[in-house]
Amino acid sequence: MIEVGIIGANGYTGGELIRLLDNHTEAEVTVATSRKFADVPIYKVHPHLRNIDLKFKKIDPSDIEADLVFTATPHGASMNIVPQLIDKGIKVIDLSGDYRFDDLDVYEKWYGLKQENPLESVYGLPEIYRDEIKKAELVANPGCYPTGAILACLPLANEKLIDKVIVDSKSGVSGAGIKPTDITNYPSISDNIIPYLVTSHRHGPEIQEKLGKFCDVGVSFTPHLVPVIRGILTTVHSFPSEDVSSDYVKELYDNFYKGEPFVSVLDVGEIPRLSSVRGSNYCHIGSFDVDENGRLVIVSSIDNLVKGASGQAIHNMNIMFGFNEKESLNNPGLHP
Amino acid sequence: MIEVGIIGANGYTGGELIRLLDNHTEAEVTVATSRKFADVPIYKVHPHLRNIDLKFKKIDPSDIEADLVFTATPHGASMNIVPQLIDKGIKVIDLSGDYRFDDLDVYEKWYGLKQENPLESVYGLPEIYRDEIKKAELVANPGCYPTGAILACLPLANEKLIDKVIVDSKSGVSGAGIKPTDITNYPSISDNIIPYLVTSHRHGPEIQEKLGKFCDVGVSFTPHLVPVIRGILTTVHSFPSEDVSSDYVKELYDNFYKGEPFVSVLDVGEIPRLSSVRGSNYCHIGSFDVDENGRLVIVSSIDNLVKGASGQAIHNMNIMFGFNEKESLNNPGLHP
Amino acid sequence: MIEVGIIGANGYTGGELIRLLDNHTEAEVTVATSRKFADVPIYKVHPHLRNIDLKFKKIDPSDIEADLVFTATPHGASMNIVPQLIDKGIKVIDLSGDYRFDDLDVYEKWYGLKQENPLESVYGLPEIYRDEIKKAELVANPGCYPTGAILACLPLANEKLIDKVIVDSKSGVSGAGIKPTDITNYPSISDNIIPYLVTSHRHGPEIQEKLGKFCDVGVSFTPHLVPVIRGILTTVHSFPSEDVSSDYVKELYDNFYKGEPFVSVLDVGEIPRLSSVRGSNYCHIGSFDVDENGRLVIVSSIDNLVKGASGQAIHNMNIMFGFNEKESLNNPGLHP
Amino acid sequence: MIEVGIIGANGYTGGELIRLLDNHTEAEVTVATSRKFADVPIYKVHPHLRNIDLKFKKIDPSDIEADLVFTATPHGASMNIVPQLIDKGIKVIDLSGDYRFDDLDVYEKWYGLKQENPLESVYGLPEIYRDEIKKAELVANPGCYPTGAILACLPLANEKLIDKVIVDSKSGVSGAGIKPTDITNYPSISDNIIPYLVTSHRHGPEIQEKLGKFCDVGVSFTPHLVPVIRGILTTVHSFPSEDVSSDYVKELYDNFYKGEPFVSVLDVGEIPRLSSVRGSNYCHIGSFDVDENGRLVIVSSIDNLVKGASGQAIHNMNIMFGFNEKESLNNPGLHP
Repeated sequence: MIEVGIIGANGYTGGELIRLLDNHTEAEVTVATSRKFADVPIYKVHPHLRNIDLKFKKIDPSDIEADLVFTATPHGASMNIVPQLIDKGIKVIDLSGDYRFDDLDVYEKWYGLKQENPLESVYGLPEIYRDEIKKAELVANPGCYPTGAILACLPLANEKLIDKVIVDSKSGVSGAGIKPTDITNYPSISDNIIPYLVTSHRHGPEIQEKLGKFCDVGVSFTPHLVPVIRGILTTVHSFPSEDVSSDYVKELYDNFYKGEPFVSVLDVGEIPRLSSVRGSNYCHIGSFDVDENGRLVIVSSIDNLVKGASGQAIHNMNIMFGFNEKESLNNPGLHP
Repeated sequence: MIEVGIIGANGYTGGELIRLLDNHTEAEVTVATSRKFADVPIYKVHPHLRNIDLKFKKIDPSDIEADLVFTATPHGASMNIVPQLIDKGIKVIDLSGDYRFDDLDVYEKWYGLKQENPLESVYGLPEIYRDEIKKAELVANPGCYPTGAILACLPLANEKLIDKVIVDSKSGVSGAGIKPTDITNYPSISDNIIPYLVTSHRHGPEIQEKLGKFCDVGVSFTPHLVPVIRGILTTVHSFPSEDVSSDYVKELYDNFYKGEPFVSVLDVGEIPRLSSVRGSNYCHIGSFDVDENGRLVIVSSIDNLVKGASGQAIHNMNIMFGFNEKESLNNPGLHP
Repeated sequence: MIEVGIIGANGYTGGELIRLLDNHTEAEVTVATSRKFADVPIYKVHPHLRNIDLKFKKIDPSDIEADLVFTATPHGASMNIVPQLIDKGIKVIDLSGDYRFDDLDVYEKWYGLKQENPLESVYGLPEIYRDEIKKAELVANPGCYPTGAILACLPLANEKLIDKVIVDSKSGVSGAGIKPTDITNYPSISDNIIPYLVTSHRHGPEIQEKLGKFCDVGVSFTPHLVPVIRGILTTVHSFPSEDVSSDYVKELYDNFYKGEPFVSVLDVGEIPRLSSVRGSNYCHIGSFDVDENGRLVIVSSIDNLVKGASGQAIHNMNIMFGFNEKESLNNPGLHP
Repeated sequence: MIEVGIIGANGYTGGELIRLLDNHTEAEVTVATSRKFADVPIYKVHPHLRNIDLKFKKIDPSDIEADLVFTATPHGASMNIVPQLIDKGIKVIDLSGDYRFDDLDVYEKWYGLKQENPLESVYGLPEIYRDEIKKAELVANPGCYPTGAILACLPLANEKLIDKVIVDSKSGVSGAGIKPTDITNYPSISDNIIPYLVTSHRHGPEIQEKLGKFCDVGVSFTPHLVPVIRGILTTVHSFPSEDVSSDYVKELYDNFYKGEPFVSVLDVGEIPRLSSVRGSNYCHIGSFDVDENGRLVIVSSIDNLVKGASGQAIHNMNIMFGFNEKESLNNPGLHP
């Protein structure tokens, strides 16, 4: 049984980590920090966790004792916390953007922050970096949009079939975090759809960098907020450089993701939905249709808080510690 | 490992049984029937169950071999299926209304059906009938509204503090079943609230009969359909015959439900929410406020498909077979 | 053409006043104030009003010139603004709670405020006080819950048929105002229902005082927040002192509301819905069912921002100035 | 005052026609047909129209007397009804797809129907065909997706700046019609997003044909169903053949749509939302952002039942009869 800490446990991703780890047979949350809610039982913030006997603690990162710490802290905050943990020999999975980029210039440009404490890290997408994750001290957990987008494009990029993709994503509102804003106020976003940062969301360059390791591709990304609690549906439009059929593409994806525990390649024409993966760590990928103009459409669906954040983080932990990869992540989606 | 059958597995409660049993360590679904979808993989109907390798079968009840069968069949259909199974020595948990009533006249009046095959059964609310369930051959799984309403009223009824209760319930749309109707069509019920069967819902007499065993009480029940997928929130208004305080009531509930694995008695003034129990088998009970007119308000929340149907059915199975009561039901709610 | 001012025009009720008055043939909004958004075009805050050429102004109430001013200001703020306007001879319709109560002690107890500037006012429910409104200088526009609840109970109270009513109300989230909060954040309230101030909402005593002028009745009120943008559905449970039939009650309501332009008395058993009155000034009242315990259920539905706030305010204005009562309020609800 | 008939008045578009025409000063609905609901008051189907005194009639098209008829009939049905009306000298606005295509082969291929009764018609998009509509006997009202998509692309097509566009549309569920289906059942589509007919929706070729008159462009169209009652948000991705700036594009749109009563060209970076046009006949067009890969994004929002169907039909009627174009369509959107 390993001891696990969560820094910044009062947000949605913190809540998800606690929820999912509750049934883990080899890991236990021993400390969950929150400056705002010090000494408050976690169920006051996460009412669904009423039967979990845990209180938020206000504790300095350097005083944490644990085998692994999840830093569910804001961009810019992580870079001041992670090094302290690494120095103590604690393994870290960071859910912020601070350690995701190989190219620090890209990070600093898009996040408007100076990376004060660069460290060696592994990008925590197991479908690409499983071997590196096994040995990592610091895993940078991928962004929510990049998880769905990269998984949807990866087999095509790996075959160098695409030089330009349009990634049109639709995200549930929990992706905006637990802090209420004008746009996430119920009457604003219910019965509505709101595109935002239409050509300037920082997850665009994250997708670009990671796919760019497989082929030379220009990623054009646009996110939309939709009246959904959880989930990201990503519609990828591309014009493959060669003439491909749906069946060919389907086979490509089947082969590429063979054995992956959390990627389900659907049948040709079968449609991924958010409800199929709600609350689960699965990514559904499907559609594979080609139209008269040679456009190929791939669609993926994930739960932004699970495969797009906390579930993937736990998956990474399972890999780092040699646990069964599906431990505590073995439930199907919640539909309806 | 016991073998479990599900008759009528293509509806919401059937899907929930399969979802929840997927992680059960002592029970396995070996047959899931559907006349409409014979030989179709279950994920074509339940897209979230894509990784469960099971096909619907069209099979006569008398040909089923299993240790236990869940009959997720319509009212009126169950009474023709259950006896065949019981005759074969198979234990049955029936999710219809056919075997819930002690008083057949009440059943026949409210369901407009003749009970052709009366059988001895136990009403499957473990919080009342745990000992009887242990020995039962046939358990009649409670209705969704009655589960939330009875649990909210039971400690008061047990103390004979109430002679009249108003049960104002708000149900998610999955309670209306998987078959689309005019009222459950998205544009009809989204952004809307629709009371229905305002004084004539048959769950009223079910609540009445079960509470009536504890005290002489008149139950006035009104259900509302609300734009929610899952969940029933029940607001119980009563005028206790004695002067009670919130703290007294809270203590009453704490004592009554002590040790119950799935009932959480909240603090005074703490508010049950649907999201706290979404996807889980918990029932949250709280509020306990008394107003200037002597009205006491108790509120309960459940997931209508889990504690209100399939989860409670599995709880009953666990009791019947001596399994750990929380087996496969151990997950917290899905919030947000 | 009269000139109309709106103080506090950047909230939901302010937006509704501008939206509805846009087509008024005898009134024109000449000033819309907002301290926060001084000199900002109103469509930056109210994106649906993009074609209305108006900017928010930061202006002292004493500098406003108008025939009528709507004060869409918070409780406690109105009492410092209204007297200045009245002194200048401007008629005022106040949308706060400051001038709604005859009994100042009740106001001060429930609002936790001292009424510094009491003034003579008329309670702006035209169905009761039409004649007084005609001559009023200051109209106190009713609360949203009281509008739906009083209209549902009034004919019964007028006949002295009730001595105790339970008012179980379900409100859309816009009732909580434009300012985002933890509870109104989309992931908190979507797919959820949250009762609040279960026995202590200050609209309870407002309903009590107004119905109390018709008969001696104890009002027990409980509000719930539901995942709906607009609308209040009010379910009134009562035990009439005499044996009444649905048809008798229906006739009572028909007679009482005969000629009222905005109250629709539905058929017996016909169910009011929020979608029927969405965006409109109508109140639908129906159900009229009596159960075996002698409980009578009346249900009403309104749009909380229109009949429950801005539409009713314009109705009052139309009465005060002798305009056609339906002027600018003549549209049906928006369904679906 | 002209007399107006509606054939197929029990669907959503029929309801919208009646709702919107209720305040028209020069047109009156004198007959509303429904085979299914003959002699039923319209409010039994359209509960928001409770105060409109009209009953559905079952009446043969050839027996209708009117100045204009809206045929809100299914594809394939219209072609058998419209000629009878035209023969009687009645002007017709057809809301089906039967008369939208110049190229009958395209129609027959995509609708799987033989056009038995071809007639001369004008495509009822006033922003292109105002002059032709003025003189038309038969107007083919555009599809809902094409309305939003064509308006978003038109100024670019007119300048021959695009040779390929990706149209990624998100539609509210009312677009699927009033008849409930598995996919539109509330628990299926709430909290979900479902792409459908990913590369094979027949509105694709409609957009293609109409834009094709302005420039040689390949249209790649994908629709998604989103948990929204009303509205279509269309995100158009294109790679203009020349280097363009946001400001240049904005000016292009301003000039193109100058004087159009129902098209609002937003500021650069201002985001169209469904809530801004809910219930109204406006189309908002905005964004105009260009990314590092030279991709230009244009976004449009409409209410699919109003500008995308019944409102546009009334706009066409106003043009055909020389009425004020905004008559009965003059209300802003309903936000929140």
